[in-house]
Amino acid sequence: MTLTKKPVTGMKDILPGEMQIRDYVTSLVKETYSSFGFRSIETPCVEHLENLCSKQGGENEKLIFKIMKRGEKLNLENAKSEEDISDSGLRYDLTLPLSRYYANHSNELPSPFKALQIGSVWRADRPQKGRFRQFVQCDIDILGDPSYLAEIELILATTTLLGRLDFKNFTVRINDRKILKAMALYAGFPEDKLDSVFITLDKMDKIGIDGVREELNAEGYDKDGIDKYLELFDKTTRDVNGISYLKEALDGYLDAETADNLETIIASVEATRSADFKIEFDPTLVRGMSYYTGTIFEISMDEFGSSVAGGGRYDEMIGRFTGQSTCACGFSIGFERIITILLDKGFKVPDEGEKKVFLIEKGASGDRICEIMKEASRLRSSGTRVLVCQMNKNKKFQKEQLMKDGYKAEDIMEFYNTELKN
Amino acid sequence: MTLTKKPVTGMKDILPGEMQIRDYVTSLVKETYSSFGFRSIETPCVEHLENLCSKQGGENEKLIFKIMKRGEKLNLENAKSEEDISDSGLRYDLTLPLSRYYANHSNELPSPFKALQIGSVWRADRPQKGRFRQFVQCDIDILGDPSYLAEIELILATTTLLGRLDFKNFTVRINDRKILKAMALYAGFPEDKLDSVFITLDKMDKIGIDGVREELNAEGYDKDGIDKYLELFDKTTRDVNGISYLKEALDGYLDAETADNLETIIASVEATRSADFKIEFDPTLVRGMSYYTGTIFEISMDEFGSSVAGGGRYDEMIGRFTGQSTCACGFSIGFERIITILLDKGFKVPDEGEKKVFLIEKGASGDRICEIMKEASRLRSSGTRVLVCQMNKNKKFQKEQLMKDGYKAEDIMEFYNTELKN
Repeated sequence: MTLTKKPVTGMKDILPGEMQIRDYVTSLVKETYSSFGFRSIETPCVEHLENLCSKQGGENEKLIFKIMKRGEKLNLENAKSEEDISDSGLRYDLTLPLSRYYANHSNELPSPFKALQIGSVWRADRPQKGRFRQFVQCDIDILGDPSYLAEIELILATTTLLGRLDFKNFTVRINDRKILKAMALYAGFPEDKLDSVFITLDKMDKIGIDGVREELNAEGYDKDGIDKYLELFDKTTRDVNGISYLKEALDGYLDAETADNLETIIASVEATRSADFKIEFDPTLVRGMSYYTGTIFEISMDEFGSSVAGGGRYDEMIGRFTGQSTCACGFSIGFERIITILLDKGFKVPDEGEKKVFLIEKGASGDRICEIMKEASRLRSSGTRVLVCQMNKNKKFQKEQLMKDGYKAEDIMEFYNTELKN
Repeated sequence: MTLTKKPVTGMKDILPGEMQIRDYVTSLVKETYSSFGFRSIETPCVEHLENLCSKQGGENEKLIFKIMKRGEKLNLENAKSEEDISDSGLRYDLTLPLSRYYANHSNELPSPFKALQIGSVWRADRPQKGRFRQFVQCDIDILGDPSYLAEIELILATTTLLGRLDFKNFTVRINDRKILKAMALYAGFPEDKLDSVFITLDKMDKIGIDGVREELNAEGYDKDGIDKYLELFDKTTRDVNGISYLKEALDGYLDAETADNLETIIASVEATRSADFKIEFDPTLVRGMSYYTGTIFEISMDEFGSSVAGGGRYDEMIGRFTGQSTCACGFSIGFERIITILLDKGFKVPDEGEKKVFLIEKGASGDRICEIMKEASRLRSSGTRVLVCQMNKNKKFQKEQLMKDGYKAEDIMEFYNTELKN
């Protein structure tokens, strides 16, 4: 009986061509964020199940790959529920492990702490084209900084990265959970219905303002309140003065500082940006995660539909580990999305330098091999990539394969026992 | 109730100082092996349990982290054995996933194919100092090359890497499973006892030749046979002419080609090496894995006791997926061992370039922030790393922390709302 050749359902083997692009993007990420003072960290891929299941019923919890207890701890006969046979699982994002990490190590870390983490996460989603059950996330977070400098730095660093990947014409949209809330309360929605109102609002870009109106109507909210609510969006969306307008309109519902900060963030990013993008206030931006407490932001490109990065402030998460709330603001970069875009547009990793192939005749003498290896070594130490391998019986096919793999005909040298051809 | 701050048992959070070294070694590994024509690949961390358990009862199988089935597939009530609730697990090495990968993709890959894979593996070992249940392995493999060019290239590439990490005085020891076998058969050990004889032989460096003699005696082997066996080691260990001696002595038991190839490998590596090391034939080298079929090799450094890299030829593994045997030769580099050695000797990552910290007074105006961010941006685009953060109330403590984190006093600049100090 032979073993199974295919990867497990929903996961994928990465071929060298794609891997080269992934490696390139990874090193560009590390280099770029490092220039902003971010430090690489790593957390284990396995987390306590108790922590993974703590985000109060998020969809992600259902998708956890749970790991079986082992040895004496595993008592199959008496097992009644999944908790009896599992107490850990594979992480499904990097934010929860980072929060645990910071809670565990904050006294060994600078304050504020700027963290970069690139790593695989796992979700047992229904397999579908282009979505895999193991995928890479790339998160940057600033912990312990209460000021909007955190937001500015996160946005500047990430847009610099996208610019270096030659992405153009993208848009940073920014909002604040406190503005979202103030707008809804001002319009008279009951406080305990806000999450449901935001779920509807989040569909604005798909169903338009009329679709949102219809849905809110269907939910039975007060018609005048809905009008009052939607008028706010009419007056502020994609409007440079949107924030100033809200500052006045929402007086009594919104603290001036929140609005001022948002204006400063936008102004600072606009004044400093090095890449080709725009930043705008978007009062319809919701972002799903319930753990956000302040600013929220997202980067999207018209030509690619969905967003390539998103994040926000989550000042209450670390407190779930320590009992003390701690400022935290983060950006999650859509690593897999970026790789897909690059692959789709036929991206080539820039300038790889010289490369050669040495094909050596089968049966070459030991002395001849020494001579050839010395030559390979000489070239390598001067920066040339040299692939040494035995010449196959079907030399023509072997050379075709090598050329498919990126070598040119003139890069391929043939060595025989006595003389050098080509 | 607060959540659990510590990582799961036996796994570790990696702090920025160590992570910087890990990132540095990783990029050096990629760069070095790339210059030898190796290509990065990646396989999923999760594998079919059936594949993981296929190495015929290795110790590793007991240490697998098994993943629970989900949804309808999980039938807890009727579960009688672990197989009923799990059909996948975390990989415990990179060789098995690579073999599956090659079996699955060989027609999309060049031949021979030179693969580099760096990734985490998991083993539920008893936790102990310096050994963790998640750790990084780094494997290079040459698939589809029947010639000893594979061995030469693997050894040259790996010794070049160690040299670039400033490791000196290391020793490459090499042997061949066919020589091991010929020596034992020549001495008259029964063929079905060879594995057990090799387990004893493997202890030579710990218990010496007399210890080995004693143990073989205790197992009840023929005394003359033991004498004949151990005399061979006496005549060949650490002897430049060891292989020639065996060629004659083992006539009829060992094919000449095996011995000749080993001589050529040693001679070519000696003639070409760029780093400071020696390579020697070691007839006592066994290497535990039962899947090796030909040459086996190991790199050790006297000052660090255990080996830092090891590998060999395993021509039968890929056939377990395809039904056809395929040449394969690989080297596993002790990534964690190397990191530990570097940390112990206080290794510093070379030349990081200029770096600055901008500490900004709380409450600085929006205009002032813009001005400061522009200056940071200017420095960054000229290659300086700039960390921007808000000035803490306890500025003295914050600066001390930053200096512990590698910044110098003169790198730290303070910005106030109106003027620049320092």
